[in-house]
Amino acid sequence: MKDIKVGIIGCGYWGPNLIRNFNDSYHFDLEYACDLNKDRTERIKLCYPYVTVTTDYRELLKDRELNAVAVATPVFTHYKLVREALEAGKHVLVEKPLASTVREAENLVNLALKKGLILLVDHTFIYTSAVRRIKEFISAGELGEIYYFDSVRVNLGLFQHDVNVIWDLAPHDLSIMDFIVGEKPVSVVATGASHTPGGLEDVAYVTVKFKDNLIAHFHVNWMSPVKIRKVIIGGSKKMVVFDDLDPADKIKIYDKGIMLSKANEKSVYQSMVQYRIGDMYAPAITNIEALKVEIEHFADCIRNKKKPITDGEAGLRVVRILEAASKSLKKGGVKVNI
Amino acid sequence: MKDIKVGIIGCGYWGPNLIRNFNDSYHFDLEYACDLNKDRTERIKLCYPYVTVTTDYRELLKDRELNAVAVATPVFTHYKLVREALEAGKHVLVEKPLASTVREAENLVNLALKKGLILLVDHTFIYTSAVRRIKEFISAGELGEIYYFDSVRVNLGLFQHDVNVIWDLAPHDLSIMDFIVGEKPVSVVATGASHTPGGLEDVAYVTVKFKDNLIAHFHVNWMSPVKIRKVIIGGSKKMVVFDDLDPADKIKIYDKGIMLSKANEKSVYQSMVQYRIGDMYAPAITNIEALKVEIEHFADCIRNKKKPITDGEAGLRVVRILEAASKSLKKGGVKVNI
Amino acid sequence: MKDIKVGIIGCGYWGPNLIRNFNDSYHFDLEYACDLNKDRTERIKLCYPYVTVTTDYRELLKDRELNAVAVATPVFTHYKLVREALEAGKHVLVEKPLASTVREAENLVNLALKKGLILLVDHTFIYTSAVRRIKEFISAGELGEIYYFDSVRVNLGLFQHDVNVIWDLAPHDLSIMDFIVGEKPVSVVATGASHTPGGLEDVAYVTVKFKDNLIAHFHVNWMSPVKIRKVIIGGSKKMVVFDDLDPADKIKIYDKGIMLSKANEKSVYQSMVQYRIGDMYAPAITNIEALKVEIEHFADCIRNKKKPITDGEAGLRVVRILEAASKSLKKGGVKVNI
Amino acid sequence: MKDIKVGIIGCGYWGPNLIRNFNDSYHFDLEYACDLNKDRTERIKLCYPYVTVTTDYRELLKDRELNAVAVATPVFTHYKLVREALEAGKHVLVEKPLASTVREAENLVNLALKKGLILLVDHTFIYTSAVRRIKEFISAGELGEIYYFDSVRVNLGLFQHDVNVIWDLAPHDLSIMDFIVGEKPVSVVATGASHTPGGLEDVAYVTVKFKDNLIAHFHVNWMSPVKIRKVIIGGSKKMVVFDDLDPADKIKIYDKGIMLSKANEKSVYQSMVQYRIGDMYAPAITNIEALKVEIEHFADCIRNKKKPITDGEAGLRVVRILEAASKSLKKGGVKVNI
Repeated sequence: MKDIKVGIIGCGYWGPNLIRNFNDSYHFDLEYACDLNKDRTERIKLCYPYVTVTTDYRELLKDRELNAVAVATPVFTHYKLVREALEAGKHVLVEKPLASTVREAENLVNLALKKGLILLVDHTFIYTSAVRRIKEFISAGELGEIYYFDSVRVNLGLFQHDVNVIWDLAPHDLSIMDFIVGEKPVSVVATGASHTPGGLEDVAYVTVKFKDNLIAHFHVNWMSPVKIRKVIIGGSKKMVVFDDLDPADKIKIYDKGIMLSKANEKSVYQSMVQYRIGDMYAPAITNIEALKVEIEHFADCIRNKKKPITDGEAGLRVVRILEAASKSLKKGGVKVNI
Repeated sequence: MKDIKVGIIGCGYWGPNLIRNFNDSYHFDLEYACDLNKDRTERIKLCYPYVTVTTDYRELLKDRELNAVAVATPVFTHYKLVREALEAGKHVLVEKPLASTVREAENLVNLALKKGLILLVDHTFIYTSAVRRIKEFISAGELGEIYYFDSVRVNLGLFQHDVNVIWDLAPHDLSIMDFIVGEKPVSVVATGASHTPGGLEDVAYVTVKFKDNLIAHFHVNWMSPVKIRKVIIGGSKKMVVFDDLDPADKIKIYDKGIMLSKANEKSVYQSMVQYRIGDMYAPAITNIEALKVEIEHFADCIRNKKKPITDGEAGLRVVRILEAASKSLKKGGVKVNI
Repeated sequence: MKDIKVGIIGCGYWGPNLIRNFNDSYHFDLEYACDLNKDRTERIKLCYPYVTVTTDYRELLKDRELNAVAVATPVFTHYKLVREALEAGKHVLVEKPLASTVREAENLVNLALKKGLILLVDHTFIYTSAVRRIKEFISAGELGEIYYFDSVRVNLGLFQHDVNVIWDLAPHDLSIMDFIVGEKPVSVVATGASHTPGGLEDVAYVTVKFKDNLIAHFHVNWMSPVKIRKVIIGGSKKMVVFDDLDPADKIKIYDKGIMLSKANEKSVYQSMVQYRIGDMYAPAITNIEALKVEIEHFADCIRNKKKPITDGEAGLRVVRILEAASKSLKKGGVKVNI
Repeated sequence: MKDIKVGIIGCGYWGPNLIRNFNDSYHFDLEYACDLNKDRTERIKLCYPYVTVTTDYRELLKDRELNAVAVATPVFTHYKLVREALEAGKHVLVEKPLASTVREAENLVNLALKKGLILLVDHTFIYTSAVRRIKEFISAGELGEIYYFDSVRVNLGLFQHDVNVIWDLAPHDLSIMDFIVGEKPVSVVATGASHTPGGLEDVAYVTVKFKDNLIAHFHVNWMSPVKIRKVIIGGSKKMVVFDDLDPADKIKIYDKGIMLSKANEKSVYQSMVQYRIGDMYAPAITNIEALKVEIEHFADCIRNKKKPITDGEAGLRVVRILEAASKSLKKGGVKVNI
């Protein structure tokens, strides 16, 4: 069973989670762990003595027996590493975002297609029970027409050295939006500010517009004293609040829509919109580690030549918004069409 | 003592609060209540039988004994009513926003100056204990350099007939920011969407930029299933969270600043910023109705020819940002300089 | 319509609420306000100039035209005042608790019955939408068998001079329990402590037992730094949490019951109970002032000779538990049968 | 360094945590894992291939090289296993509660003393940063005189097969109280109810009284739909709320004490206690696993012949209260002196 041979490139912040989950899977045989930093590989050797560790990723690519690699390195290295891995015939699971530019992402999508290999982007949140439950709910039409998607992801966290806060944090929420809304964005406006020497923005705001008055907004911040991870989705029939930090009630569905009432025509002043104020419902959410689900899905895609839910195309759609946001940000908040 | 004669123009949503507070004040003698809607004035007559009610505001302006008027009518009528009141020699307290355009606001500021009359804009939040406490705290330098001001004010509320959600809700937070930050904004970017027949935006996002990397952002929404009123202010030394809906701890001050550490230069990957994770402190806040404080301040300004904290200039500064936001919004989010 | 003439005896903490609500009712004509403290009656005269104020309650009882009185005086005076009012032929609404002893309460119940007068005890919470919604829910059998009723009512509040914290705070929760559970208690155990000169307990814990393993518990405390008002009701099918201080979701119904699974008999260690972990549901609650509902109900009972929901019998049942709790408390926590 | 040879007896719910922490410690050499259930030991063998696994605890006791054992078996087995381990000359770390009866606990304390061996009871919470911070705070006299200790520990959890909810959950809070309050309890009153076939109480309330009006209360419940783990400690100067489930602010210290004011003597009705309503302060808490701290302390005690903070005496004091609570519970809530 454990017959898909896999190697990990990048053992920093996220890599150990990949290693633990690949090791625990009944499908994968964890063969390699690679990192430029020897301290890291040594620590992994201690826990997983049977894994081959190396500082040279080419060792993995040369091994003809190896079926798949997982890439968890800094964003700017994704393109080179994923491209070489695909060229060497390996299936690839790669950290978000897929690549640093749209062009690179397109190349990787095309290369995977040409080679008939699985390219799965690690949009982890798509594999959580909460996001899948929201998706089911929206697909069943229970929200009605979607009006807005509002996301806040802020905390006092790690600063990345190579990318700004949009490229670091927004991919999570952009991938959730892409999965749930399922529409093509039309334009992007981004603003932000930097307060640290490197000049990378540590707080930013991104508006994404669609046809039909659907608006999405993303607030990302590395310098908030409180941690917030909240998405509010407003629909014509119902609304959803997804609070990832609420241990008890991650999803709340509000039976509160909006029905317009005719203004009292004699009134010079104002009219009201009649609200239907209804009940709230918080479905039970199973608590399975998303990465475990994702890795099982990766195995299923490899074995059965399936298209991953978070395939290269999904990764590319996210990079398109990120690139547009960068352009808009650089020009102080101009509207950039996609 | 109750010797400042005052009349109220506009007895709709907010007017009754003005009436109650003027009536309870030891300084004001409530003489008139005026509204185009007779039902409203009749209800007021019932509770305050000694007040003269009328549907014609000119009655108030003609009364030479009347010292002051409070204007609580729709925004588009502010300019005409406040101008005529000032010209008739009355001190004026006017609802936020001061006027519909910068030009109108400027005219009112100049007129009040020329006539030597008090013009106080009802930026109510400035008179809350919470906002004053934050101001003291920042003035004392305890936050260090201010990095960002992030505000969220969303709820499932009344829809205004004459103004969009920015003109309706953002003046509260813009006036708080103006009071606390005390700097001149440089540019505004606004995005939003409308989902109701009138075409007025019901959800919007406004970024205000200053010199020196200070950024402010305002999220306003009439269609949120949950009510949120939260401001986060990040500084180089400390950070403040102001949650107006938390009955116990409205203000929380976090002793968490940011200190940069040199990146390990050999590391290809990432460096960290060293955080000083410290204590949190929630000062006791006295619970006095802000409008009561404001009306006492109005009396004090009238008696002692003082400049109101929320004078016409403050109202004008808020209108400047609102007008710029409208321009930006209309063009889909271009940057508008102020 | 406003033809039931009513007078209020006691204008301290709660009296003004009674006055405001009787005055606003379409059924009652507010004739008298009585208090030993002249400052209080003068303040009332200011707001309600047409009301006769007095320091002598006998003035009210002598007035043959007066139909009803509301008694909002300290507990130890209830018996004398309610008795004299009933004897004078007045319908009575009296603050909780009904009286200081079971014997007194019984006398009042009997007297009202004999005279054919309405005696309504002000168990305000019974008239809230939240408690009525819980009652409907339980009456419909949705909770299954009730296992426990756990209540916490603590805050940094007023100290009463004449009664301890049980007599002051517990009547609220005892009346809710009496209304919802609808069973006869069997025994009471109470413990507590006093930390102030008067020797009145400021923190106390009361256990009430029923047949069939139903247990109720009440935690009351005048010296808590945080305010908590929470009731948890556990049933065999579902469970309810009633958090009176949650502005958004006062009632939460949990679809989590308990199903026993046979222990693995080979296991020396432990067996598990299989939990059915289900959804949570928070019904919309209308927000009408309970006292308004109660006063309308008082009018309805008077007009139509109905039995009040919170009649003397309900008041007596609460006093029975209070008296038993006092006995138990005095003896350091012995079990007292009812 | 890793020179204290240790074996674990009992690999069920808590055992694996002991195994992981002993394995990670620089002081202990993990030699044995023992459990009657072979599935469990096999799973441990998988992760820790160098550990000797067995179903017979006597193997460990016979090994003369073994210095210490950790006992994580059901409560009723503690006495036999700990006794034999001490007799075999092993230092012992044992799960809470120390034993099933006071007599057993006393015997173990005496035996450890006689043999000069370390006996540490796993009162884990004593080793959390939060509890230690509260202890420092109280030892410094900042709370003033302690008035009450109120604890709630409820959830929809595992049912134990061999002990009721008091013996299962209350030891945590009793040990915290013992550590923090540092006084000798005088009497215990316990009430509770059972709703499952075995007849073991699943909900219970325990009052513990001390001299000088200090009162402690413990609410434990296996059948609550919501998880609560909260301790409130009231003092004459300040009060503390310890909410173990609040990820951000576990400890909140309230600057709210009580100062008595003389009652207005003319008032027949009530007097007030003047409250000093002050600030709240939430100190930063370091986030180290308590069990790790405890195991380092175990090593330190063994090496340097120190008395453990949670020694046999502490375990005995907790068992004394548990036994008294059982007696009181059986008699329906009589007061049991200690």
